[in-house]
Amino acid sequence: MPHLLSSIVAQLGGKLVGQDIHIQSVKTLSDATANDISFLSNPKYKKQLETTNAGAIIVAPNIVGLPENKSYIVADDPYLYFAKVLHLLYPPQKSTRQVHETAVIHRNAIVPDSCEIGAFVVIGENAQLGENCRILSGSVIGENCVLGDECVLYPSVVLYPKTHLGNRVMIHANSVIGADGFGNARTADKTWYKIPQIGGVIIGDDTEIGANSNIDKGALGNTEIGSGCRIDNQVQIGHNCIIGNHTAIAACTGISGSTKIGNYCIVGGAAMFVGHIEIADHTIIGGGTAVTRSIDKPDFYATCYPIQTQKEWVKNAVHIRHLNELSKRVKALEKQ
Amino acid sequence: MPHLLSSIVAQLGGKLVGQDIHIQSVKTLSDATANDISFLSNPKYKKQLETTNAGAIIVAPNIVGLPENKSYIVADDPYLYFAKVLHLLYPPQKSTRQVHETAVIHRNAIVPDSCEIGAFVVIGENAQLGENCRILSGSVIGENCVLGDECVLYPSVVLYPKTHLGNRVMIHANSVIGADGFGNARTADKTWYKIPQIGGVIIGDDTEIGANSNIDKGALGNTEIGSGCRIDNQVQIGHNCIIGNHTAIAACTGISGSTKIGNYCIVGGAAMFVGHIEIADHTIIGGGTAVTRSIDKPDFYATCYPIQTQKEWVKNAVHIRHLNELSKRVKALEKQ
Amino acid sequence: MPHLLSSIVAQLGGKLVGQDIHIQSVKTLSDATANDISFLSNPKYKKQLETTNAGAIIVAPNIVGLPENKSYIVADDPYLYFAKVLHLLYPPQKSTRQVHETAVIHRNAIVPDSCEIGAFVVIGENAQLGENCRILSGSVIGENCVLGDECVLYPSVVLYPKTHLGNRVMIHANSVIGADGFGNARTADKTWYKIPQIGGVIIGDDTEIGANSNIDKGALGNTEIGSGCRIDNQVQIGHNCIIGNHTAIAACTGISGSTKIGNYCIVGGAAMFVGHIEIADHTIIGGGTAVTRSIDKPDFYATCYPIQTQKEWVKNAVHIRHLNELSKRVKALEKQ
Repeated sequence: MPHLLSSIVAQLGGKLVGQDIHIQSVKTLSDATANDISFLSNPKYKKQLETTNAGAIIVAPNIVGLPENKSYIVADDPYLYFAKVLHLLYPPQKSTRQVHETAVIHRNAIVPDSCEIGAFVVIGENAQLGENCRILSGSVIGENCVLGDECVLYPSVVLYPKTHLGNRVMIHANSVIGADGFGNARTADKTWYKIPQIGGVIIGDDTEIGANSNIDKGALGNTEIGSGCRIDNQVQIGHNCIIGNHTAIAACTGISGSTKIGNYCIVGGAAMFVGHIEIADHTIIGGGTAVTRSIDKPDFYATCYPIQTQKEWVKNAVHIRHLNELSKRVKALEKQ
Repeated sequence: MPHLLSSIVAQLGGKLVGQDIHIQSVKTLSDATANDISFLSNPKYKKQLETTNAGAIIVAPNIVGLPENKSYIVADDPYLYFAKVLHLLYPPQKSTRQVHETAVIHRNAIVPDSCEIGAFVVIGENAQLGENCRILSGSVIGENCVLGDECVLYPSVVLYPKTHLGNRVMIHANSVIGADGFGNARTADKTWYKIPQIGGVIIGDDTEIGANSNIDKGALGNTEIGSGCRIDNQVQIGHNCIIGNHTAIAACTGISGSTKIGNYCIVGGAAMFVGHIEIADHTIIGGGTAVTRSIDKPDFYATCYPIQTQKEWVKNAVHIRHLNELSKRVKALEKQ
Repeated sequence: MPHLLSSIVAQLGGKLVGQDIHIQSVKTLSDATANDISFLSNPKYKKQLETTNAGAIIVAPNIVGLPENKSYIVADDPYLYFAKVLHLLYPPQKSTRQVHETAVIHRNAIVPDSCEIGAFVVIGENAQLGENCRILSGSVIGENCVLGDECVLYPSVVLYPKTHLGNRVMIHANSVIGADGFGNARTADKTWYKIPQIGGVIIGDDTEIGANSNIDKGALGNTEIGSGCRIDNQVQIGHNCIIGNHTAIAACTGISGSTKIGNYCIVGGAAMFVGHIEIADHTIIGGGTAVTRSIDKPDFYATCYPIQTQKEWVKNAVHIRHLNELSKRVKALEKQ
């Protein structure tokens, strides 16, 4: 169903410049054709405005010299506006309000009529779902789990017993929430004695979790994920971690147990955190960075070994193992 | 069901000091209230003994000056004792001895009556389960798998054919044991020719494997995991690896094929191992460490790029690429 | 069923030297017995020819002084030949052409009679499978997915809607193809606004993907994986990445969005790639290497922090944080 630009502006704000055309889809500047809307968020790509075939483009107010043969929506934040246009044109799927005949739902579970329950879903005793949840094929919701309204579990998500999700939490396929934390006591003969993990996981509202990610239950208390977080694929969050609100964690990041990450933090992919540390609000961690200590001053931390060819690396790496001696030798020279 | 301290001591040893009160749960020193037992394993937190509301605390014999208004259990290893109290108060779930009507069990599989088989479980031809196993919803046990007694597979675990588990092996949700190893021969025209993986996986007794972890089958022989191991979430173990007994491997660690890790080793999170190396018994590897060679001397190896702000890092990292030259320049200065 | 060496040579080429014996299995030189064939691909292990009990051995033409009591197949590439012998002795399982009664297949999906569909499989509306596919237990194929001929999905694989697989694509258990990319716009108040991901995933012919791996759908366009690729376990490929043909990516590697990797590349385990970069054809990346910039010259890049004991590391690492100053001090000395 095509949308008139004027109708988009009426719903999302911004200012229409040029003809009021119909839009069918959203594409990048290079892929767009006459029925598509695109966006320019980075002024350095402004030249693409001259070559794009997009029928309409979302631009910032400070872009001058717009080619005249196009339509534009002028918006303060073109990237955010683009996201909102996508939501308008591709609204999230709603609950079908149907329970598949194969689903196994414990008679003491609470599943409102407004929920969609897919094939081969299992919902355990005393689990409680909010309105309009979508639980897709093969997901398992353990006993005593509580889900808010409009949660979405993609296929084969596993919620261990006692997991609590707020409203509008989305979890992608094959993620596991609430598995046992990695807690073991070492005996005198150096064997491992499992520490029963009796806590739970609490996730706030509007948080999205990617595919094949893990959030372990707390050992005694809870593991807590805030509201409005974005957690990517293959993220591992250990027991008793506390992640603040509106924090984003990119793929392949591992966070050891009992680490506390503040609000509004951004963590790049494949970062790793030791346990029992605390990261200040608004901290940014670059991809591949090992966070080995607490951070009390928000800044952009980004440290990883700089890339070289293997041949160059071999020559240099050997000296890293002897930096202490090199430093002493320089000091000795300075004394002379 | 509350437990008397005297009853705990009767079962687990240790010495009761103070009143014989009823305990309902186990909490941290800061969360505990009058009906809870807590523990002090690190003497540096001794001050918390004065502020905690715990009714009882497990302490080491060398802690002196215990506040008098509390009850104590004096035990040689308070952390281990705490784990044992947890087991007493929260014993592991037993098999319900029920087979869910939806489970698909091959007529030639052996599943003792004592086992619990969840909804949508699939058990293949000639698979053989020991007594009291718990196979939770959606798990798949391939043909010719052998499980010992009291194994627990959490939901959606996949055992490829020919996987062997010892007794009391626990595998958390969405882990995969026995997928094909990464074996490919390169042809003259640089395409990949798959090497059929015909080995299996053998896991010893009392080993626990976390969620979303992978242990690949051997190429020709077997991949072997010892007894009493602890393997965390998102661990990847390549084909033909051999992991010794009582070794613990924290989350996000990747171990390349044919690597042999000894007994009683401890591997921190997000470590990585190249293939075809051998690690001595009792070796400890720190988190995020790249293990690029065999280790024949047990020690604590821990090497990762030290964290800095991105701004500082940029200034320093550039010199890493030229350390060899810097070293030569220092040598030249020394000659002068 | 045993195979005569002469029959193997008739099918695969190479030259038989010695007696024409029956072979039952393939083993390593150290494990093989009289009924086994083994191979010697690396001349440095030539001594094992004297001690092995293998009945037959595949060797390269340049190996001289072969012990006389054995049979040999002389082949240009013994490792590749060994792989082909394995295929001959252990041919891949064929479709059983059976649809399990529990499978839920949408009436508008196209599933040829030649396909094998396992228990608890879900196939969505308008999904289309080629001939002889094997979809094992619990896998979920979303709406509008297209699979070529002879694809194999191991248990619990999830294909989100609109995923396209070529012919002979194999995906191991618990992998997820087509989950939402990690796309979020940040609002003025620093909260995250989800960018609907409306693209798809296209995978070429003959590509194999390991277990618990993820390939996200494109944001607007597609994420594309070439033909003949080998992708190992726990690999994460972000939205809009383009991976060329015949590229191999080892386990635990993470590739950020919109990165383009060329043809015939080899990526070691636990490598990580920032987004929006381009890697030349035939590039080799070592394990654990952080690829932080585009590579336009194919070479072997391999950089990671060299391993040391923690005690040595502490002494050296501190100087990394001050390399810039050390370099300046050396320069000052040189001026004197």
